[in-house]
Amino acid sequence: METAEQALHKPQIDLAMVEEADGRIKGQAIRTPLLEAPLLNEFLGLRVLFKPECLQKTGSFKFRGAYTKLSRLIEAEPEKSVVAFSSGNHAQGVAHAAQLLGVPCTIIMPEDAPAIKLANTRAYGAKVVTYDRLTGDREAIAEQIAAETNAEIIRPFDDLDIMSGQGTAGLEIAKDATDAGIRIDHVFCPAGGGGLLSGIALAVKFCMPDTSIWFAEPAGFDDIIRSLETGTRQEADFLTKTICDALLTKSVGVHPFGIIQKYVSGGYAISDDEALSAMFLAFHHLKVVVEPGGAAGFAALLQQRERFSGDTVAVVLSGGNVDPKMFAECLARGPDVSPS
Amino acid sequence: METAEQALHKPQIDLAMVEEADGRIKGQAIRTPLLEAPLLNEFLGLRVLFKPECLQKTGSFKFRGAYTKLSRLIEAEPEKSVVAFSSGNHAQGVAHAAQLLGVPCTIIMPEDAPAIKLANTRAYGAKVVTYDRLTGDREAIAEQIAAETNAEIIRPFDDLDIMSGQGTAGLEIAKDATDAGIRIDHVFCPAGGGGLLSGIALAVKFCMPDTSIWFAEPAGFDDIIRSLETGTRQEADFLTKTICDALLTKSVGVHPFGIIQKYVSGGYAISDDEALSAMFLAFHHLKVVVEPGGAAGFAALLQQRERFSGDTVAVVLSGGNVDPKMFAECLARGPDVSPS
Repeated sequence: METAEQALHKPQIDLAMVEEADGRIKGQAIRTPLLEAPLLNEFLGLRVLFKPECLQKTGSFKFRGAYTKLSRLIEAEPEKSVVAFSSGNHAQGVAHAAQLLGVPCTIIMPEDAPAIKLANTRAYGAKVVTYDRLTGDREAIAEQIAAETNAEIIRPFDDLDIMSGQGTAGLEIAKDATDAGIRIDHVFCPAGGGGLLSGIALAVKFCMPDTSIWFAEPAGFDDIIRSLETGTRQEADFLTKTICDALLTKSVGVHPFGIIQKYVSGGYAISDDEALSAMFLAFHHLKVVVEPGGAAGFAALLQQRERFSGDTVAVVLSGGNVDPKMFAECLARGPDVSPS
Repeated sequence: METAEQALHKPQIDLAMVEEADGRIKGQAIRTPLLEAPLLNEFLGLRVLFKPECLQKTGSFKFRGAYTKLSRLIEAEPEKSVVAFSSGNHAQGVAHAAQLLGVPCTIIMPEDAPAIKLANTRAYGAKVVTYDRLTGDREAIAEQIAAETNAEIIRPFDDLDIMSGQGTAGLEIAKDATDAGIRIDHVFCPAGGGGLLSGIALAVKFCMPDTSIWFAEPAGFDDIIRSLETGTRQEADFLTKTICDALLTKSVGVHPFGIIQKYVSGGYAISDDEALSAMFLAFHHLKVVVEPGGAAGFAALLQQRERFSGDTVAVVLSGGNVDPKMFAECLARGPDVSPS
């Protein structure tokens, strides 16, 4: 018999839900291409196709899930508004989706968030409510706003609508590879809460069952690696420092974890140096701007490239919201790639 | 009666030739999307769609024309090899197209060309012949190699096959805009020898006759602006310094000039500072790496944005082959945009 925990872990999302999301985002999200650089392939000794979600509206894949979630929500409940807490890519994705769909949107951000992030979120038309990071409770503030304004809290990854929206990136990888007659052996994807990874794993595994899915986490935030080892959701070590700010989550979502356990082959922990090297190579060979967390999947492939030698790999570059100072750091360091 | 000069200027290229090129490059060139950044639109007070040819194979649009030219050439004469002289984007485009098509390729480069450019061209499988920039004559070397090795000299822009290949970028802009139901008022494009500009103008004008085409040249290299004023091809001032190394041509090609006279509305000269500001905004809002010359069209739009206020504009970002040091310079300066 199935326990309650097992039932919770059972995937409640299928390919049809991703395909339905794909129809929703068409014409709203940017249809990112697969990029390839012949000299990089030669340098690495394998063939790599990149899915540059840094080019997506709002600078990350988050827009896919947010638009999917919000459009389904207001179709069912046209009077709803939305609230989200985030100081990063999720906030921008939700704010812009809400703007396009005409949904009133509140974003709760720490009062010491960078001015540019506060300004950007407001520029997308969202109302920004700030809180004190030390004394405030953003969950409680969100629930209060939700109760007062008939708003739905839009969570960043532990949500089937969000996951199915992120999965559209996987559908596109499968479709473009199939159209081009390319057999993809592996997909590498960054992982924080697992929303993108689980959506992509689901879509890719349905379309290309022989493809293996791998993920990357920052060292110290390798909770999904440990969760897969132990079979239960582990927590990240928040005392660790990492430049991969997009991947800082306490633990993988319940729903994503069910999918990841079923469809994902394994993960690798990457260092800040490895993220910077991957960013540099993306600059140099692909001409795209990737943020540290967005480059984590590529960093993992660089780290493991001898293991995957000769294979064809799709790498998801999940976001590009990096400030000029951090980007200048990757430029100054160059690639500095040595496989381990 | 038509003079010989007029006959030469008469376009000998039509939409069918661009469409035929489009079929050839399919699956070989990257199908670049139109990118859009909502916050940038708001900042500029107009709607901008970007055609990021920096993401193209070899880092610039040059691959389109080179692949078109070489595939037509070896279809007609399978035993031909090719030779080109260039230290920049044309060399890489020709070398990689030749590699894919199995055509023996020699690239003539100055012996003091940056080591990375020599290495890259060799990595694409080309034979590199160097010459002394002060005493050597690259045209004579090319002609000698052509005679000795049954090779065709592949010229960078004054060639109908090359122009029709570059025009495929214009076809894609028109198709994507039409599919998305977007009416484009203007297209902005960088111009050196005019191969890209003329190809795009031809394709866009056939597909969207009400769209105006504009170009950008570096200050001092504004020979096309002066050529349009005088009605005859003028020469650039090679004593001027510019960071837009991709746009350093002595004068516009004869064939491109005929098309430009017929279909292009006008051009703007841009400064190095304006190019750097455009590069920064492309980094910040679009997450793409653009080289100075590749950003010239965007720089012209920034300069003229009050004139085009409220319009919908497509901007071609024609290349991204910029070294880290130059890119760090645009990061350090920020946007610094003030319309003139």
